[in-house]
Amino acid sequence: MGKEEFVKEITNIDDDCVQWYTDVVRKAELADYTDTKGCIAIRPYGYAIWENIQKYTDQKFKEVGVTNFYMPILIPESMLQKEKDHVEGFAPEVAWVTMGGEDKLQERLCIRPTSETIISTMYSKWVKSWRDLPILGNQWCNVLRWEKETRPFLRSREFLWQEGHTVHETAKEAEERTKMMLNIYSDVIEKLLAIPVLKGRKTPKEQFAGADSTYTVETMTYDGRALQAGTSHYFGQNFTKPFEIKFQNREGKEEYAYQTSWGISTRLIGALIMAHGDNRGLKLPPKVAPIQAVIVPIAQHKEGVLEKVTSIYNNLNKNYRMKLDDRDNYSTGFKYNDWEMRGVPVRIEIGPRDLENNQAVLVRRDNGEKEIVELSNLNERLGTLLEEIQNSMFNECLKRMEEKTTIAYTLDEMLESLEKNQGFIKTMWCGDVACEDKVKEVTGAHSRCMPFEQEQLADICPVCGKKATKMVIWGRQY
Amino acid sequence: MGKEEFVKEITNIDDDCVQWYTDVVRKAELADYTDTKGCIAIRPYGYAIWENIQKYTDQKFKEVGVTNFYMPILIPESMLQKEKDHVEGFAPEVAWVTMGGEDKLQERLCIRPTSETIISTMYSKWVKSWRDLPILGNQWCNVLRWEKETRPFLRSREFLWQEGHTVHETAKEAEERTKMMLNIYSDVIEKLLAIPVLKGRKTPKEQFAGADSTYTVETMTYDGRALQAGTSHYFGQNFTKPFEIKFQNREGKEEYAYQTSWGISTRLIGALIMAHGDNRGLKLPPKVAPIQAVIVPIAQHKEGVLEKVTSIYNNLNKNYRMKLDDRDNYSTGFKYNDWEMRGVPVRIEIGPRDLENNQAVLVRRDNGEKEIVELSNLNERLGTLLEEIQNSMFNECLKRMEEKTTIAYTLDEMLESLEKNQGFIKTMWCGDVACEDKVKEVTGAHSRCMPFEQEQLADICPVCGKKATKMVIWGRQY
Repeated sequence: MGKEEFVKEITNIDDDCVQWYTDVVRKAELADYTDTKGCIAIRPYGYAIWENIQKYTDQKFKEVGVTNFYMPILIPESMLQKEKDHVEGFAPEVAWVTMGGEDKLQERLCIRPTSETIISTMYSKWVKSWRDLPILGNQWCNVLRWEKETRPFLRSREFLWQEGHTVHETAKEAEERTKMMLNIYSDVIEKLLAIPVLKGRKTPKEQFAGADSTYTVETMTYDGRALQAGTSHYFGQNFTKPFEIKFQNREGKEEYAYQTSWGISTRLIGALIMAHGDNRGLKLPPKVAPIQAVIVPIAQHKEGVLEKVTSIYNNLNKNYRMKLDDRDNYSTGFKYNDWEMRGVPVRIEIGPRDLENNQAVLVRRDNGEKEIVELSNLNERLGTLLEEIQNSMFNECLKRMEEKTTIAYTLDEMLESLEKNQGFIKTMWCGDVACEDKVKEVTGAHSRCMPFEQEQLADICPVCGKKATKMVIWGRQY
Repeated sequence: MGKEEFVKEITNIDDDCVQWYTDVVRKAELADYTDTKGCIAIRPYGYAIWENIQKYTDQKFKEVGVTNFYMPILIPESMLQKEKDHVEGFAPEVAWVTMGGEDKLQERLCIRPTSETIISTMYSKWVKSWRDLPILGNQWCNVLRWEKETRPFLRSREFLWQEGHTVHETAKEAEERTKMMLNIYSDVIEKLLAIPVLKGRKTPKEQFAGADSTYTVETMTYDGRALQAGTSHYFGQNFTKPFEIKFQNREGKEEYAYQTSWGISTRLIGALIMAHGDNRGLKLPPKVAPIQAVIVPIAQHKEGVLEKVTSIYNNLNKNYRMKLDDRDNYSTGFKYNDWEMRGVPVRIEIGPRDLENNQAVLVRRDNGEKEIVELSNLNERLGTLLEEIQNSMFNECLKRMEEKTTIAYTLDEMLESLEKNQGFIKTMWCGDVACEDKVKEVTGAHSRCMPFEQEQLADICPVCGKKATKMVIWGRQY
């Protein structure tokens, strides 16, 4: 089977990015469909990416005082109903447990779509004095939302995530925490996943159900669509009042606490695939790649080759996440394609002639560049090369995001720009939800956020022509 | 508030070990009850123990080639029913999802009580040739079993665990894997948790629903009860046939694969509490303790004390999991009690006089022994002391297990021994389930296992008097 035939097995990314995405998810063995409708099986290669994201993020959380816990997955219906906006937002998309064994339950239990209610119930038991604050809790867990349309990683009925929930003495401290956690998310996405983010505050329409304000990090896909990659919410006292999270403050008076929550999920794996990748398949940034470099021995049946290559592998494996592909039932060409499909950042080719010359050939997955490296220098060069690739992949994405970010002054310009290359559209906005709805109706784009970095592009709202002081960024989403 | 008063707050362990257990779980802030019946909230201190167990175990898994994945939590009813024994064993204790949003589901979905069925369904898609084998998969996840009586950690409706699922070319390889994983469990429990285990094979009556054989590691509680701490199952082709996990073997013929599964859970935290501990609260072995040593400054308001102690803390914290208790609203005595309750292995007391003499006082949680250590030697001595404590706690447990393991030749002797000090009872057994049922009926003890280390204690079964060639160990359980 030749290279061409293999490559044909995935859809052309420029013809149909969505089908390309699905093909890559399955060919690279990141996930598979299951008989449970709308739920995927995350396969070991995909899960290893999630493990790397978890490890990096959890470390960042711990550095800012967050501790992990675990709360029940089942929430009694009456508990879910305590905060009005929250239940309205989530009730239509929860799964209900109505039977335990043979018995019908007296009260239905929902599978958590998110855990504000049950966590607030527990916090109200644990918080008595200002000395008990802040509580900086988090859990890594599964959640379920009964979505109608699903797509692997990007929108799955069940997904894995972390949800952080904090309670504070003051509004100021809580608001600072909201932004602190958002900054950790942008660090994870930019530094680990090599994807630039757009940061800002959601419009009230796009806020989390029950929040006072929602902050977001948004990424852009290969074809210019927007993805909400992580959110951080400031609740004020919206939950602490109905759930009675009260404390005795420093003046000895009883007061309701201030609350936040924030989350990222396995959707980041979808963002990763959609941000990097080409017609040869997945491209993984070295820092998050389960395999950072693969060694493909050439003519491995020849005497001494496999032995020497194995010794090189063992050495490199001390410092990098390595794979030695010594399968004897596949051609070298097949192996090249296979590892390219899986997005391994560097391929190292070593054959009898290379060994004679004390060298190896390094091939970059991101741009195909080859270089010959002396074996004595291989360990060091691989390290710098991986860093170069990480940076280069980020810059590549940043360039695309900048190219696909345009300014519009009218609805027609917005539509035209979106039809041409999707992307992020910057406009002014009057703040009226009717105008936001109109944009959605005419262009199919949602507001992504009001970016932290505001610009005064014009004086009027492109929809109603009234005075506008806020800049909003819009985009169509998956 | 004096020491005595504080200590009074938990039940005496020798009076009522079960109530002592519940008191410790709550006072040490390991877990709390929730409004979801039968489900607990695992608090940060308890969850940190689980994180340490996970980290140690996951590393051991990866060393023997296991990779992690994630499968859906919801299993369609028809899928659960494919293996007859399995569904009979689990159907009575599963929770059923019957509604998604507003809609009644066409087919009920159960929340996984364990995942053999859904994982076998996926494996049947992924296995084609002997070259695809073995598959060595595992997931860390939550499961739910609709238990009638629950107890924090030991038997909770929802619990966290890992479930490993492997498929192999040959029965021999699968059986070896079953025992390999059991050995990892005994390593985790003995080396990390400092609890000696009894290893053996379950009687057919006590086997996992659908298994050909179940191997177990059993531990003993403070009061001599038995706890099943981990199990490893060999399935033969019981699941691979109905789920059609077939492969082309090395001779080119189609064959059904051989399968295993194995699991440990947050129940281990219950085993840990129940194995170690006394009237002052929890005792944690250093290797699994979230905090290995706590520094309590004496007269911390005196000039220079807190500054110097903080510098000592910072130094030790590079090598050990440390806590500095500089709370200014509690007395030293309260702090001593508090950390003893939480089972921190070593307390380090440092006051102005200690600083003058360049020394610190180290107090062991396990036996209360004190020693004075020069500050220059503190880092090194803490390391050896933690090791000594780890070993000493294991030996203490081993001694108790040996003391509470007796031999019986008649049902009366079994009953007498159990009434006296619970414990493990060794007897011969004819192999007949009727005799096993009789033992249960008369003594309340279940068979724990047929130990790998068999002894020929007698020639006849203590129940029926017929020929007996197997030795069984029995015990009452929580």
